Amino acid sequence: MQKPSVPKGTRDFSPEAMVRRKFIFETIEDVFQLFGYLPLETPAMENLSSLLGKYGEEGDKLLFKVLNSGNYLSDIPVRQINPENAGKLALRICEKGLRYDLTVPFARYVVQHRNDLTFPFKRYQIQPVWRADKPQKGRYREFYQCDVDIIGSNSLLNEAELIQVIDDVFTRLGMNVLIKINNRKVLSGIAEIMGLSGMFNTLTVILDKLDRIGIEGVMSELLSTGIKADAVEKLKPILKLKGSNSQKIDKLEKILYGSGTGQQGLKEVDTLFRILGNISCRSEILWDIPLARGLDYYTGTIIEVIALDDRIGSVCGGGRYDDLAGIFGMPDISGVGVSFGAERIFDVMSKLNLFPEGAVTGTKVLFVNLGAKEQNHILPLLSKIRGAGIRAEIYPDHAKLKKQMAFAHAKKIPFVALVGEDEISAGLITLRNMQTGEQKKVNLDELIGQFM
Amino acid sequence: MQKPSVPKGTRDFSPEAMVRRKFIFETIEDVFQLFGYLPLETPAMENLSSLLGKYGEEGDKLLFKVLNSGNYLSDIPVRQINPENAGKLALRICEKGLRYDLTVPFARYVVQHRNDLTFPFKRYQIQPVWRADKPQKGRYREFYQCDVDIIGSNSLLNEAELIQVIDDVFTRLGMNVLIKINNRKVLSGIAEIMGLSGMFNTLTVILDKLDRIGIEGVMSELLSTGIKADAVEKLKPILKLKGSNSQKIDKLEKILYGSGTGQQGLKEVDTLFRILGNISCRSEILWDIPLARGLDYYTGTIIEVIALDDRIGSVCGGGRYDDLAGIFGMPDISGVGVSFGAERIFDVMSKLNLFPEGAVTGTKVLFVNLGAKEQNHILPLLSKIRGAGIRAEIYPDHAKLKKQMAFAHAKKIPFVALVGEDEISAGLITLRNMQTGEQKKVNLDELIGQFM
Repeated sequence: MQKPSVPKGTRDFSPEAMVRRKFIFETIEDVFQLFGYLPLETPAMENLSSLLGKYGEEGDKLLFKVLNSGNYLSDIPVRQINPENAGKLALRICEKGLRYDLTVPFARYVVQHRNDLTFPFKRYQIQPVWRADKPQKGRYREFYQCDVDIIGSNSLLNEAELIQVIDDVFTRLGMNVLIKINNRKVLSGIAEIMGLSGMFNTLTVILDKLDRIGIEGVMSELLSTGIKADAVEKLKPILKLKGSNSQKIDKLEKILYGSGTGQQGLKEVDTLFRILGNISCRSEILWDIPLARGLDYYTGTIIEVIALDDRIGSVCGGGRYDDLAGIFGMPDISGVGVSFGAERIFDVMSKLNLFPEGAVTGTKVLFVNLGAKEQNHILPLLSKIRGAGIRAEIYPDHAKLKKQMAFAHAKKIPFVALVGEDEISAGLITLRNMQTGEQKKVNLDELIGQFM
Repeated sequence: MQKPSVPKGTRDFSPEAMVRRKFIFETIEDVFQLFGYLPLETPAMENLSSLLGKYGEEGDKLLFKVLNSGNYLSDIPVRQINPENAGKLALRICEKGLRYDLTVPFARYVVQHRNDLTFPFKRYQIQPVWRADKPQKGRYREFYQCDVDIIGSNSLLNEAELIQVIDDVFTRLGMNVLIKINNRKVLSGIAEIMGLSGMFNTLTVILDKLDRIGIEGVMSELLSTGIKADAVEKLKPILKLKGSNSQKIDKLEKILYGSGTGQQGLKEVDTLFRILGNISCRSEILWDIPLARGLDYYTGTIIEVIALDDRIGSVCGGGRYDDLAGIFGMPDISGVGVSFGAERIFDVMSKLNLFPEGAVTGTKVLFVNLGAKEQNHILPLLSKIRGAGIRAEIYPDHAKLKKQMAFAHAKKIPFVALVGEDEISAGLITLRNMQTGEQKKVNLDELIGQFM
């Protein structure tokens, strides 16, 4: 028989991995709830019509499609059923697809339930998504996203709140991060004064490489795309801007004088930093003018979070969108949200050994099973220990002591309790610290006290 | 534009529903962990080869199949691509399927990772499953299962532990239940002495109707399948058995004298009740001799839990299986597990109004937003309130007071905090109880104290 396996790009999460993953998810969730966000879940399958066209042509190809039940071919003209027509045929034989992200299902949810929701609507969503990407190191076909959004409010207070959420999450996780922010309207203004409004994407993709290729690199790449030298020259003073945020804003206000959008962007950056001035954040917050983020739907503030102690790149990101629900026919509703990269956070925390001890072990004490008589004596004790909220178990079989100790060792259970005839008659429990080997006799209350 | 929707048989879970669902899942999870079970997650998609043939012919039809990426038709001979061949073709164009339950993926996991696991292996798994069933009231195409299993131990202590888990879960949820147990070996013994070993399934399906159709109904249905009258007569005294469990065992021991399997089953029932005698359970535990449960793979103890205050039927069930991992080539490893029906539990608890208040509300206090100055004063206060672990938020926009109060009301936020010029200069906060309308002025410490 073939050794069983999982589909490529997917993973089992062992108890050891799960306990750590849950630590991350629960930390994030606790913070979300502290700020008034509530959970939402949407189905794994969406109608393909809800998904197609939302992620670009490349994204459409990466959607997992679910075959219709029953005879999926019966209503389809025979001439359409051939390999040359495979692409179009797929959309006839599959009505459903697996969700590709949490953003589009959220937009679909908001539009579908618009009359039942209280706006501003604050929700978080922690669920897996699926992409038929080529699997490689750190890239999976099934992975979790943790999204938090507020929709139906234009206030920049929301951006400030999300930055607080980010700061709080990474503080609790023990990760040092840099929070970079920018505003798409500032970038639009820059494109405008360069005369490149029609080439916004080309400009931002190249700008995004500034860290790696430097100012001169950016300039020459822009020139190589056919952009005129005098346009490119206008970018130089912007990239060389120095000083405090308010100094940068003063200078940019002059540079972007001719662009209403650019001025609006600067005003938003200014307001956001003023609000943030009233909040104490542990993480550094940087206005990063070349920061663009890839997604088309961002229209205002954009946010990206970088892990400082690992070169893994972005661990969280997001921004404001003014028309996301418009894709489902409900235009002009503004929202802002960020998404935490749980898989990358897991990798960083594993590498830096940031998981607390409690997130690694399960059971606190294992009772050795010496026989039926001892077992019957132990069972009511166990109920009391569990009643006090202490994770405890008894080895189920009357196996050799050595085997039971090996079990406790393999499961990293910190304490083993032994109850033999002597202990039964004395009303005591021998408690062994598996780390130090130290043993002592205690009564039930003392044992419970040990773990409280 | 068409109103967006979800695929039939699937559901969005609104924040209101999610908060309640999480209460159920977290309660169940807490109990699992208290007994030493640790979480496991497997991928949503499994190789179809792992799923096919595991759920019977009907089950195979209910598997959601995922279309292969790229040109799924390119390697397939043209003559095979036609509607008459749709069934076989589906298995060529789809290599993956969505998981149908958590049991088969668990067996696959155990066999695949057998060398890394410590046995007995205790795990729980709470994940959605998908079935292409005809949707109807209470039956969905996507729903959650909550499974808990221990594999690699024959001890009946495991069965007793799972019964404790069940009792503990339903006690915490506030649901009154009856825990019915039986043993497949006892049923096999009954079939054997009736001369019906080859008709085990027919017998158990009819036995299962005893509650509804009574002893005479069972007898006549058995006769109608062609079973001889003298065989059917042998069943009568068994169904009429009365008395305590030990009295029933004494009588059945004589009736099943000729069946080794039957005797073994009785011994197991006896041992299990002896162990349970050492444990105090809140729920009634009943030995229900006609209880069979449908699934083929159970070989020993079977367990079914009935909600007493609602006629919804079984809310939890399971049993011992001696060869589940055998389907993946690892025979003779015994396990036992139960599955909690989260969807039904949700329905019962909603109907009986069993959710505690805390499981319904999110934010504890909303700060009204009267303007930029007040907002700046409030933000540091908010940080301190959240720092104390209290869920709090500020309305993001400077909207009319009426609108902000309506927001608090719609979101069932119990307290609203008002900070205007007077409060700022006095260093106080006006706190309004939304239920009673009562207002009082408090300082920050008093406000925090209110929620601790």
